[in-house]
Amino acid sequence: MLKAHVSVSLDGYMAGADVSVECAMGRRGDELHNWLLASPQDPVDAEVASSMNSHQAVGAILMGRRTLDVGIGHWGDDGAFGMPCFVVSHRDHDPIIRGDTTFTFVTNGLHRAVEQASSAAGAKQVNVMGAEIIRQLLVDKLIDELEINLVPIVLGDGLTLFGDLPAEMMDFEQLSVRPSASVTHLQYRVNKPAVPVTPPNTVQVGDADTGASM
Amino acid sequence: MLKAHVSVSLDGYMAGADVSVECAMGRRGDELHNWLLASPQDPVDAEVASSMNSHQAVGAILMGRRTLDVGIGHWGDDGAFGMPCFVVSHRDHDPIIRGDTTFTFVTNGLHRAVEQASSAAGAKQVNVMGAEIIRQLLVDKLIDELEINLVPIVLGDGLTLFGDLPAEMMDFEQLSVRPSASVTHLQYRVNKPAVPVTPPNTVQVGDADTGASM
Repeated sequence: MLKAHVSVSLDGYMAGADVSVECAMGRRGDELHNWLLASPQDPVDAEVASSMNSHQAVGAILMGRRTLDVGIGHWGDDGAFGMPCFVVSHRDHDPIIRGDTTFTFVTNGLHRAVEQASSAAGAKQVNVMGAEIIRQLLVDKLIDELEINLVPIVLGDGLTLFGDLPAEMMDFEQLSVRPSASVTHLQYRVNKPAVPVTPPNTVQVGDADTGASM
Repeated sequence: MLKAHVSVSLDGYMAGADVSVECAMGRRGDELHNWLLASPQDPVDAEVASSMNSHQAVGAILMGRRTLDVGIGHWGDDGAFGMPCFVVSHRDHDPIIRGDTTFTFVTNGLHRAVEQASSAAGAKQVNVMGAEIIRQLLVDKLIDELEINLVPIVLGDGLTLFGDLPAEMMDFEQLSVRPSASVTHLQYRVNKPAVPVTPPNTVQVGDADTGASM
């Protein structure tokens, strides 16, 4: 089960303009995570936050190379996740080990990375991080659930969640809606075609990926 | 009190591409109103629909010229609304009377049209229809509330609610969230600056307006 959590502005951005290592969420993009960092935290927000990367539910993380590059400086000595992470990349790299968090680089395509992450996760779910990788997984019908934290701000520019995806491919089913005082957490099932799509072997998105995912 | 109700896709479109008189909601845009036209209707959707243009709450309607042009053929002999409607337009036109529905054309600017509609509405609210006019009212800080019916489809192209609005201007407060089985109804207060903005006399948006509003 592949699942992505994304905090999205009212105008559909999951990061502001000009994402960089210094400014991982882009211009004003940090405001997308105010609900996550508030103190004290709204009880609904707290529940969503604690379930996001909980070890009960999540067995592995799949991310793009850029997500790793902009994120790793912020994830501390233990790598923050405490589970196997798989990094889709064109460029190979030795595994990075930070406490219980391992970052394994996968250079032979997104579908192989999905297989490795799913295998590592076993019966648990795989969480996906990064705008570009989520988009590619949506196109390839590999994502099962999308959880959108809808934040009532307008960014005007930045990285969109859906971008210019082919509209015909998308079919969502509303699973749950949990409003907190400031944001709304929307959970959707991504409906897949009845006939499984044969995965191509050539897909590579890691290096175009961004650091925006939550 | 000015209020806009809009049905918006998950990727932020309030109408599909290629809006025309024949295809008032653009390509696949009709799907944005499936919740409104379903039979039997979800009880939450029914409650939202009946409150939208209820005579208890709403005293007048403000719309763009294009909304009128693409809509009037669909609104029947009684004009559908049963209340005074004000049409912002560059081109003058005699009032159109359809039963209790009157369409009055306002050619001296959006702010004058807001004044006329507010005056006609008295203590009740003014509902606004049309993508472009809603955007202009957001820029001019004249809208008080925005109700978004969030529909889990992806259109990929069309008329966006927010478009390229200057992001710094927008400040929303989540007032209520009502999920039905298929869509989520989100009500936001549009926060205005403490110091009132002096309205310019030159704003004209009617003819650039679109038929997409719900």
